[in-house]
Amino acid sequence: MTKLTHIDANGEARMVDVSGKPVQQRTAVARGEIRMAKETLRLIQSHEIAKGNVLATAKIAGIQAAKNTANLIPMCHTLPINHCEIEFEFPEAGDTISITSTVKVNAQTGVEMEALTAANLAALTIYDMCKAVDKNMSITNLKLVSKTKS
Amino acid sequence: MTKLTHIDANGEARMVDVSGKPVQQRTAVARGEIRMAKETLRLIQSHEIAKGNVLATAKIAGIQAAKNTANLIPMCHTLPINHCEIEFEFPEAGDTISITSTVKVNAQTGVEMEALTAANLAALTIYDMCKAVDKNMSITNLKLVSKTKS
Amino acid sequence: MTKLTHIDANGEARMVDVSGKPVQQRTAVARGEIRMAKETLRLIQSHEIAKGNVLATAKIAGIQAAKNTANLIPMCHTLPINHCEIEFEFPEAGDTISITSTVKVNAQTGVEMEALTAANLAALTIYDMCKAVDKNMSITNLKLVSKTKS
Amino acid sequence: MTKLTHIDANGEARMVDVSGKPVQQRTAVARGEIRMAKETLRLIQSHEIAKGNVLATAKIAGIQAAKNTANLIPMCHTLPINHCEIEFEFPEAGDTISITSTVKVNAQTGVEMEALTAANLAALTIYDMCKAVDKNMSITNLKLVSKTKS
Amino acid sequence: MTKLTHIDANGEARMVDVSGKPVQQRTAVARGEIRMAKETLRLIQSHEIAKGNVLATAKIAGIQAAKNTANLIPMCHTLPINHCEIEFEFPEAGDTISITSTVKVNAQTGVEMEALTAANLAALTIYDMCKAVDKNMSITNLKLVSKTKS
Amino acid sequence: MTKLTHIDANGEARMVDVSGKPVQQRTAVARGEIRMAKETLRLIQSHEIAKGNVLATAKIAGIQAAKNTANLIPMCHTLPINHCEIEFEFPEAGDTISITSTVKVNAQTGVEMEALTAANLAALTIYDMCKAVDKNMSITNLKLVSKTKS
Repeated sequence: MTKLTHIDANGEARMVDVSGKPVQQRTAVARGEIRMAKETLRLIQSHEIAKGNVLATAKIAGIQAAKNTANLIPMCHTLPINHCEIEFEFPEAGDTISITSTVKVNAQTGVEMEALTAANLAALTIYDMCKAVDKNMSITNLKLVSKTKS
Repeated sequence: MTKLTHIDANGEARMVDVSGKPVQQRTAVARGEIRMAKETLRLIQSHEIAKGNVLATAKIAGIQAAKNTANLIPMCHTLPINHCEIEFEFPEAGDTISITSTVKVNAQTGVEMEALTAANLAALTIYDMCKAVDKNMSITNLKLVSKTKS
Repeated sequence: MTKLTHIDANGEARMVDVSGKPVQQRTAVARGEIRMAKETLRLIQSHEIAKGNVLATAKIAGIQAAKNTANLIPMCHTLPINHCEIEFEFPEAGDTISITSTVKVNAQTGVEMEALTAANLAALTIYDMCKAVDKNMSITNLKLVSKTKS
Repeated sequence: MTKLTHIDANGEARMVDVSGKPVQQRTAVARGEIRMAKETLRLIQSHEIAKGNVLATAKIAGIQAAKNTANLIPMCHTLPINHCEIEFEFPEAGDTISITSTVKVNAQTGVEMEALTAANLAALTIYDMCKAVDKNMSITNLKLVSKTKS
Repeated sequence: MTKLTHIDANGEARMVDVSGKPVQQRTAVARGEIRMAKETLRLIQSHEIAKGNVLATAKIAGIQAAKNTANLIPMCHTLPINHCEIEFEFPEAGDTISITSTVKVNAQTGVEMEALTAANLAALTIYDMCKAVDKNMSITNLKLVSKTKS
Repeated sequence: MTKLTHIDANGEARMVDVSGKPVQQRTAVARGEIRMAKETLRLIQSHEIAKGNVLATAKIAGIQAAKNTANLIPMCHTLPINHCEIEFEFPEAGDTISITSTVKVNAQTGVEMEALTAANLAALTIYDMCKAVDKNMSITNLKLVSKTKS
């Protein structure tokens, strides 16, 4: 296991210098879940069928967060992303929304933090919009699914 | 279970009108975890003992996120918070950092989203600073611990 | 007609000092229109019936803009607004969306710029989401409808 | 008329993937108007001759808005623009300022939203700075003038 | 000399909890200087007499920075300021612009950082607008002039 | 001495058009100082040895400011920087921290404003974190050290 790349020789936080890295097409996929009462999910879904707006709002928040990642995470580089997509799935148990975010960029460094941040803010937005009816939601299992370049 | 307060009569997203609510001292506490390889945690902690900067950076990111919550979560109100505190604990298993955030405000609405957002961005910042040495971290069990007013 | 309040004695831009003004409940309503091909409006509305997302996205952009007005308009004060509501109407001609924004605050100064900015960004967002199918839209007749305090 | 490019197969808002588009020099020009009492325009212009600061402030607000467009309009890409220019003209009727914005970028997508947003925020800033003396201004006829690439 | 209030018991950065402090009318004044070639100052001033725009732009940047201080300085509280004024003076030597910023707020904590940040960003903006003609400018002697409450 | 590049033919502020400039690797170095009581510096350094967090916080603020320069300085271009490094030195007199910032970018224009802004915000953050124990600090001698391209 190598040393932490964001910590300099004196142990202080530092930004990684990406000057020498090639511009490549880079894609990252992240996934997380928000758990809630079954009744809460049913309410979201019935609204979704009619108007879809809890998830529509969450999707917008996730995309905005992906574009804004470098302002939120101190050592991240500002990356003008080409694409951010947020998808929602509903596992059979009926108490979970699975959130998958895919981010693409042509840049000198990858976008896993953008994908993780997008999924996370989408989850927080679902939480915000449902918190009046469900006090026991949790956001969980947020992790990187894949990271590729070409 | 009542209706979703952020959805208006036509099912579209809306901001809750807090005009009629009293200004009160409000506090919210949220907690989440980031899981990692034991070796990753050992690296963070040995740096922490020497210089503490992974966690110092995460703490700053969390506090900045708490102040910035209304820009990140569409239906949140802008709240000039009085305090945000981020604490890290290290459960015995040796593969987890537990992150607790406490946010206080004198306002017409509460700060649970600020507390959740602070813990979440602190976790994402730890992820960012360690991702070069650990590709399998996850952020999990993020939930509200308490919400009080007086 | 009195002098321009944002221009100081030397003709330079200045922020108005609101220190001596009372905190009051203040409301402002603004309205504007976006004009488009009838076919474009039909497409938005058919989507709106199904999922409502052009207007849902525009509504979110408008609310976020209301919260963010002081960053956009140099001499505006930062105001933690209590409420922002965006409503869409469809005049009979079938080529126009009318956008009405209502903003409320308890503060020492009013929120007409927040209301105007919210309606404006909602209109720009509709424009953005439809520009691939309609190159001839226009945003027009944006004005203040009312401004009250109590 | 083709389908709305910002709406995905399920009718939800989405960001357009520009990964496959070439980087090109792209320019967009937008124009809008703000209408006011003749006396208001006379006040602005007499200040403009002396110090020019209503229009100077509006110009800065427009340029800042062009750089900030992706934070304001949810499905816009972050574009590091090469240039933004704001020009004011005064049609003969004496009750209107015509605002023309020109934005340039080397990027994979165009800048019409940046140009429209710049003209719009310049108009809102003029409104803000004159609203104490004129309660009946309106912002109108905002549209794209041209969009080119090379 | 007491302990650093922004450092907690373990030496980590923390935000000061202002919950217990009274809302008061607070004012802070800061001052700094930018030094340049006499010819540069002459150019600014001749433009200032005609159009005043180097200083007009700097003034706007300073005011925007005062409103935005909590996003720039990690442990600062978000404060909705009542007023920010930036004044320029030209000491007799002819190679210096003295920048004085005054910030007012009704809040639980003071605005010295807002005043210092405003003066600083005004100076940086002057630097930016003149750097093509003068490579040897410096920003200097930035300090707090006064801090009062009532 | 040539004319001010940010002022257009009518004396109004303008953004420089960088469309015709080549993308090059550009580096800028800036340096500034913060002066304080010797006892203040001793407190920072004893904390720095133990936990380093005044300087760690200042470093993060400086890096975030470098990424955010175009939002702070009106005529600056948005530049996705490759690297920002902040270094602290302690001249022998014992009452000064010297702050050196280095910023790199592959872009059509240079990053001296990013380097100056980074050093400046790092200094302001040190000021903020020490102001409870030292009312007489000053920020001084901020200037460009070098600017290169290749």
